[in-house]
Formats: sequence, structure tokens, C-alpha cells
Amino acid sequence: ERAERAISTAHQLIERVGLPQTGADVRFYLNHILSYDQTHRTPRWVTEHLSDQRLLGKANRKHCKFKPDPNIPKPFTARNEDYLRSGWSRGHMAPAGDNKISEEAMAETFYLSNIVPQNYENNAGFWNRLEMYCRDLTQKFGDVWVVSGPLMLPQVDENGRKTVSYQLIGEDNVAVPTHLYKVVLVQKDSSVDSRALAAFVVPNAPIGFDRHLTEFQVSLSDLERMSGLTFFPKVEKAEDLKSLCEVDSCQLMDFKRFTLYISGRKVASARTLQRLEKVMEELRDAGITPDDYLNNLHLEKKRELLEKETQKKT
Amino acid sequence: ERAERAISTAHQLIERVGLPQTGADVRFYLNHILSYDQTHRTPRWVTEHLSDQRLLGKANRKHCKFKPDPNIPKPFTARNEDYLRSGWSRGHMAPAGDNKISEEAMAETFYLSNIVPQNYENNAGFWNRLEMYCRDLTQKFGDVWVVSGPLMLPQVDENGRKTVSYQLIGEDNVAVPTHLYKVVLVQKDSSVDSRALAAFVVPNAPIGFDRHLTEFQVSLSDLERMSGLTFFPKVEKAEDLKSLCEVDSCQLMDFKRFTLYISGRKVASARTLQRLEKVMEELRDAGITPDDYLNNLHLEKKRELLEKETQKKT
Ligand SMILES: [Mg+2]
Ligand SMILES: [Mg+2]
Repeated sequence: ERAERAISTAHQLIERVGLPQTGADVRFYLNHILSYDQTHRTPRWVTEHLSDQRLLGKANRKHCKFKPDPNIPKPFTARNEDYLRSGWSRGHMAPAGDNKISEEAMAETFYLSNIVPQNYENNAGFWNRLEMYCRDLTQKFGDVWVVSGPLMLPQVDENGRKTVSYQLIGEDNVAVPTHLYKVVLVQKDSSVDSRALAAFVVPNAPIGFDRHLTEFQVSLSDLERMSGLTFFPKVEKAEDLKSLCEVDSCQLMDFKRFTLYISGRKVASARTLQRLEKVMEELRDAGITPDDYLNNLHLEKKRELLEKETQKKT
Repeated sequence: ERAERAISTAHQLIERVGLPQTGADVRFYLNHILSYDQTHRTPRWVTEHLSDQRLLGKANRKHCKFKPDPNIPKPFTARNEDYLRSGWSRGHMAPAGDNKISEEAMAETFYLSNIVPQNYENNAGFWNRLEMYCRDLTQKFGDVWVVSGPLMLPQVDENGRKTVSYQLIGEDNVAVPTHLYKVVLVQKDSSVDSRALAAFVVPNAPIGFDRHLTEFQVSLSDLERMSGLTFFPKVEKAEDLKSLCEVDSCQLMDFKRFTLYISGRKVASARTLQRLEKVMEELRDAGITPDDYLNNLHLEKKRELLEKETQKKT
């Protein structure tokens, strides 16, 4: 009767002025997909697919610049000014290094919609090594899916009281996560039985070489409760999959190999002979003997820089 | 060429295992609509349309029970146990009192998807009076739209450092908001020119009768930045509308009228003569003279309870 008729028009009346928009819609980029968090001014999740073939290429991050994502409504974008002098680095969720295949795809990972305020040492160190490990997985597994994002986890005091506490930076109030997560799903061949999964929760803080990746492993259902997200909805009972860290080592690059790798990048980008020799000297000081790859790189670069200096003089 | 072809398959490959789900979808109930926050285990926004006719009815909250919303995935629901002995009340966002028209609609407002942990005194006092004010607006305005929800606002220390800090309660980690917001849009007649709007941000704490509602008013664009939400997307430049507090008083019920009102509810629900007389005594102690309405209610109830006691004896 009257009440039922009145109630039946409620939705229509509410919707006449439009429903509030959360902006959590799925956003597509060339080589990654994400959902943006308009409250935190960071992504909520960013997801990628890696394969050995799609990791090849020559795109260089030198040509990329961090910038606001033009697709995000102005009131909710982060800007570079928010990060500068904040004490926090701009941490990629979809890594630039996963996008060597295309300058355009790499440029999109520098949109601030793909970035969270990340501890500098974590970004350059442990998290970087975790990203490399994900890329390495493509050597063993045909398909690698990675989902990455920020978390705000509580601290528990002696009385069991749980408090979430995090910093906001810049005029745009970009939220600094307490932790970062990464979920990795791999598949060896065409059979879904060859799938394996692991989820990691890493504090947004420096993490040394003495810590093993498995120390940060959590169950998928625990991560889902922490993040409020459901992962891999098309995978049947994703959390009953084999554990990646049983199928593979979950071993990150060790100090020596990582230092050689970083020195290689420094050698490749050196612009003066002085700088070049400094890199090699620091390596020796750290007690690490350059391997053949680095020695060759060093010689090549030396030749190139010598040539340049000769040209300048003439 | 190769790179472009590889990139063109990226979306398809990513989506093969399904994209993460945030659960922020719009959820429809009989007389309210909401978006749920799976991370906080509370709504993110709840929206209603009020009109004088649709506020009439006899549905009674006595017949309603707080319960988990069966539509929310299990890992993300709140439960009554989370709230009990937490020190926080279960605060309706769409008020029960807006749903007297239908028992079913009222019952749905008791789903924990419509509830946030709210300070008891705020819930029973200031917020309650704000809800009454919204209902009163239907006497003056044909259409009243209300959006309500929780906020996590930062505190700023002496160095300008901004920190968001909030408690989680219960095993399900229900987030206790630092503030609550309400946006009220009214329309007098069929012309959109008769629209007016106000947005309020209220601390989740006791607020006395000395505080005026306008003290808590904020601009719509400020609330949008605080909440990460866009309100009334179908209303052109919602924030350029007339201010509700200029068109109307934005005056909440004062101490005397509110106390009379609350006493009326206590009288109506009294189950013993002793309890009934206690309510009237407390009122006199507070120095408030009962008005005719309350006096009549009291006499009627007295007669009813006397009759009951006589029946019991015979
Ligand atoms: Mg990085
Ligand atoms: Mg209430």
C-alpha cells in the first residue's frame, strides 16, 4: 500500500542528484592496471603480468619524469611538490624496470597514480631486490602476475589496544604507508596445476641483507583482511595454491651480487673518468672483486669517456 | 612491431587471473544506498532521500537488531562482538528514525554495513539532534538528500607534521573514525534554483549544547578533499549552491526541548510505574517543566501501567 509505494521510489529519488563517487574504478595503462585511492592520493593496488619476452627492451628511465596522473581528478592527485623534501622517496608500485619494452609504458609508471611515499633505503634496497626476484621468476615460469600496494597496519600496545598511525605529506596530504605488500602468482606451463603463489608484507623502512624474504611472507587470506582487497578472483581458491617459496627459493640477490649489479648501473651512467674510477674504488673498498661482466663494462666505458675527453681537447 | 604487439596483449594477460576487488561497489537497500569500506569494516558513504510523507509510520526500533550484513563478504564484515565492551557505540549513518515507514527498511539500517564506532554521548546527543534537524527540514523543503559517513582526519604537531591516528576495535579490526561528516542538500520546489547545501564535519566525541551547528560547517570542496569522495555528481557545481545555513537556521534542538523529547521516549518505553515516575522526577530535578504533550503521555502511560498491575494481582 502507501508505504510500499513510497519505498519503491526511494532509489530513484536518491539517485536524482547522483551517488557519491569513490573513484576506486579500475584504470588501464599500457602495461599495468590499477585502482586509485582518492583519500590517500596513492594507488590501492597495481597489477602487472611479466614474461621473459616482455621484459626485454631498451626503454630508459633517464627519459622519464615523475608527474601527476592527468586521468585523476585534480582535487585527488598527488604532485611532485608533496614528495620533495618530505623525507620520503617516490616508490613505484609497477616498477619502471618491468617496462623496458616501451618508453610509453615506462613513462606511465612515473605517473604519481603508481607511486607511494617509500623509505629511500627500502626503495633502493630490499624492495628493489624483491622486484628483481619477480623479474627473475620469468626465467622459470612462463607467466608471472604481481600485485603491489600500500598498507596501513596497526600497532598493538601492552593493553592490546590497536592503533593505526601514519603520516600525511605535502599540501595534498599524501598518505605514507606503514607497510607495502606484493602478491606473486606464477604459472609454469599451460596447466593451472603448475601455479604457485606467495604474499609478502614489508615494513616501509630499511631492511638489511640479513633478512630473508620468507620472513615477510603472509597467507593470502591474512593479506586480504589487512588490505580489504580480494586478489585473483578468477583463480579458484587462490590461497590453496602451492607456495611459491616451496616451489622456488624466494631468495633475493645477496649483498655481493647486488653491489656488483648496482656498481654496473653506476659505471654505465658515469659521465666523467673521475666518477667512473670512484665507483670501482668504492667497490674494492667494500671488499668486492669485480666480476668479468663489470670489468668489461668498466673498460668499455673508460674507452668511451677517454675518447670524449680527447675530442673535447681537439 | 614486436614491442607494440607484446604490449597490446598486456591487459588480457593481466586480467586472466582476475583484477583485485576493492568491494567499493554501490549497494542498494530499501531506503538507503551505500558504499562499503572493506578495509575499515564500516560504510564509506551512506545516502538517503527524506520527504515529510516518507518519514511517517510506526516501525519501531524495538523490533530491530544490529547484525552483520549478509551481503558483505565474510572476511570483511563487522560483527556485534567487535563493538561490545569496546567503549564505542554502534552509530547509524542512515538513522533508524528516518525509516518509520517500513519495518524492513528500518531493519536494514541495523546491518553493520550502515554502522560506525561512535562516541556514545555524540551518538545520543549532538549527532542525534543533527539527524532530527535533517528530518525537520522536510517541513520546509520538499526534497532533502543526506549523505553521511566516517572520516580519518590528521592532527598537526608544532612542526607542521600531519599524523592520522585511529583505533581498531574487535577481532575484525573495525576502524574508529576521528570524525563524522554529513552533507545536506535541500530543494524547496520543482526548481533547482531552490536548492541549498551544507556540509558538516563533527568530531567523534561528546559535543555540548553550547556548540552551534555552523561551527562544524565546511565547504563541500574541503569535505571532498578530506573524504576522497565527490558528492552529488549530477548537481551542477554543487559547491556553488546557496548555503543551507543562510536559507535556514541550522539551529539544532536546544537543551530544554531535547530533554523533553528524550523524556517523552523514556516515558513511552517505561515498563513499571516506578521507572515512569523516575523519569518525571529526573526532569523536575533538571529544572524543566513538562509541557502538555509530555504530561498527557505521562498520564496515559500511568493509566496503562496501573491497569497492568491490577490485572497481575487478580
Ligand atoms: Mg622502486
Ligand atoms: Mg545514532
